[in-house]
Amino acid sequence: MIAAQLKAMLETIVPPDGSAADGVRDRWDSLTKPPHSLGKLEDVITRLGGIQRSHFPEIGRRTALCFAGDHGVVAEGVSPSKQVVTAEMVQNFVNGGAAISVLCRSCHCSLKVVNTGMVHDVDHPSVIQMPIARGTANMRRRPAMSEEQMYRALDIGFSLARKEIEEGAQLLVTGEMGVGNTTAASAIYAAVTGMDPEEITGMGAGLPESRVAHKAEVIRESLNLHRPDPSSPRDVLCAVGGFELAAMCGVMLAGAVFSCAVVVDGFIAGASAVLSMLFHPGVRDYLIFSHSSGEAGFDEVCRRFSIDPLVDLNMKLGEGTGAVMILPLLDCALDCYREMATFDEAGVTEIEI
Amino acid sequence: MIAAQLKAMLETIVPPDGSAADGVRDRWDSLTKPPHSLGKLEDVITRLGGIQRSHFPEIGRRTALCFAGDHGVVAEGVSPSKQVVTAEMVQNFVNGGAAISVLCRSCHCSLKVVNTGMVHDVDHPSVIQMPIARGTANMRRRPAMSEEQMYRALDIGFSLARKEIEEGAQLLVTGEMGVGNTTAASAIYAAVTGMDPEEITGMGAGLPESRVAHKAEVIRESLNLHRPDPSSPRDVLCAVGGFELAAMCGVMLAGAVFSCAVVVDGFIAGASAVLSMLFHPGVRDYLIFSHSSGEAGFDEVCRRFSIDPLVDLNMKLGEGTGAVMILPLLDCALDCYREMATFDEAGVTEIEI
Repeated sequence: MIAAQLKAMLETIVPPDGSAADGVRDRWDSLTKPPHSLGKLEDVITRLGGIQRSHFPEIGRRTALCFAGDHGVVAEGVSPSKQVVTAEMVQNFVNGGAAISVLCRSCHCSLKVVNTGMVHDVDHPSVIQMPIARGTANMRRRPAMSEEQMYRALDIGFSLARKEIEEGAQLLVTGEMGVGNTTAASAIYAAVTGMDPEEITGMGAGLPESRVAHKAEVIRESLNLHRPDPSSPRDVLCAVGGFELAAMCGVMLAGAVFSCAVVVDGFIAGASAVLSMLFHPGVRDYLIFSHSSGEAGFDEVCRRFSIDPLVDLNMKLGEGTGAVMILPLLDCALDCYREMATFDEAGVTEIEI
Repeated sequence: MIAAQLKAMLETIVPPDGSAADGVRDRWDSLTKPPHSLGKLEDVITRLGGIQRSHFPEIGRRTALCFAGDHGVVAEGVSPSKQVVTAEMVQNFVNGGAAISVLCRSCHCSLKVVNTGMVHDVDHPSVIQMPIARGTANMRRRPAMSEEQMYRALDIGFSLARKEIEEGAQLLVTGEMGVGNTTAASAIYAAVTGMDPEEITGMGAGLPESRVAHKAEVIRESLNLHRPDPSSPRDVLCAVGGFELAAMCGVMLAGAVFSCAVVVDGFIAGASAVLSMLFHPGVRDYLIFSHSSGEAGFDEVCRRFSIDPLVDLNMKLGEGTGAVMILPLLDCALDCYREMATFDEAGVTEIEI
């Protein structure tokens, strides 16, 4: 994918179908319950109707696309984990022992694990091998990615999402694995919002509180070095992003281009989501924000971008786990939508006022 | 059940097993994820370990006990629905067309529907018939229930819960149906907290905003008439409660007496929960608050009683729907707890710091 191709694709984005959404809302109001009493769940099913241009949206066929990549900035001591953990966890993903593996089984979601550029190899037939490099460059010294690498990473996500949608996926979920990628995500948030890195930098996967200030300082120095244009998602991704972050962004863009909802996980996927909305504001209509991450500063990010996640379970696991976790809630809501009796069918007297 | 019997039962309540809970916490920390990164879900599974006195709690066998009752206060124009809707909805419950019916099917939860005292009859073999009277008295003119009625209603819930637990239920859910029961619930909250009725009275099942002030005024007049002792759940229930509210309270007391977790729905079941904790403070350890109702004032009630519901979906449907809706989240969390690999098993390097 090159810049011109992407631009042409993004120009084809159209809004969801308002009349289909209205039809879903009308059916909700005909069901035997107080109006809008299923709250946010009614809203998200109504949105799915608009996205799928259908009065009876479906999400039975769904895939979690989980991208792994390493980060050069780990050399600066920003993570409590050794870099080999990225590959070890990817092995755990495909062996079925990671949280994302268990949740995808439990929630009837296909799981595709993609190597977008790890330092260490994982030789397993279930890993889709599309490595761009052995990790990004150290953002504190040079841009994390070249522009060519960034577009390749975007295209990995875009192409895989397009393939899933063409093969019948009705919903996509984004996930990631990458030691150091909370640093990249915090840097992206700081770059696009102008927030002080200290406000948006947290413990990630268990960094001691005493080292969080150092992590924020590394982000500050990186941003001072590159000074990316806050309005340019390309600039920000190249300067302080990551292969898996760009790939998730590509999935979200494809969701909007090919009219498929994409469920966004928490802090890290949220950074990709914010960038995807900078690529094209129409992408927002195709994103479902799943949960409010427990990572520092995420609430403020949500406030600034008018993001209202479905739940807040104080989760901060990553991998796409928070996104997959909400699928049963959507299933339950859809079951209500399809199977509940209307006031007429049940012979229940409607509110008289 | 008489007062002395209940008192003797409540004296047998013991706290959950702290060492079993510690064991669950230890296993969580051994699994391949950052510590406590499943957030509230880890906490609730850990609590379940303590409640079940087991390192591997189970919730596969579960029952929603759904109590229907009518309210004399409906004569004061506090509800948008005609009183016949209680019976019509109970018919809908057992016919399978109500939200609670659909959700219990989707979430693999048994549903028991109990008539604790409706004005209109529902003749269906699936309705457990235990009516106390044809609705409570109008609280604005006389106490809603006599003490004898209140203990009978408590006993309905207590006995049915005990039977479910003896037959193997590992988790109970409380639900209700009763036109006018948000008025009773608001009155209970106002009575026990001293909050002004206006602060804790909302639209219920669709009362127009313009009539909410009247509903609050009816509650104020009722409380002024009876002046129940705020520290006495018996007093409050008799004055402004309801049969189904007392029955739900009985379920919660039985949960604590017989060591079984009870999942509490939102605004109305929450009023029973608050009373159950006044009957015995040890009951709290056996309650799982499911969701933060969208009904006015509930957030403040939660703050005052240190209640932290698992999710906030802006639901206000009742019936037990918010409680059943979280069961898949608990199932997902338990699947993670049981099926995830430990760091040792997966060969993943633990955090080095």
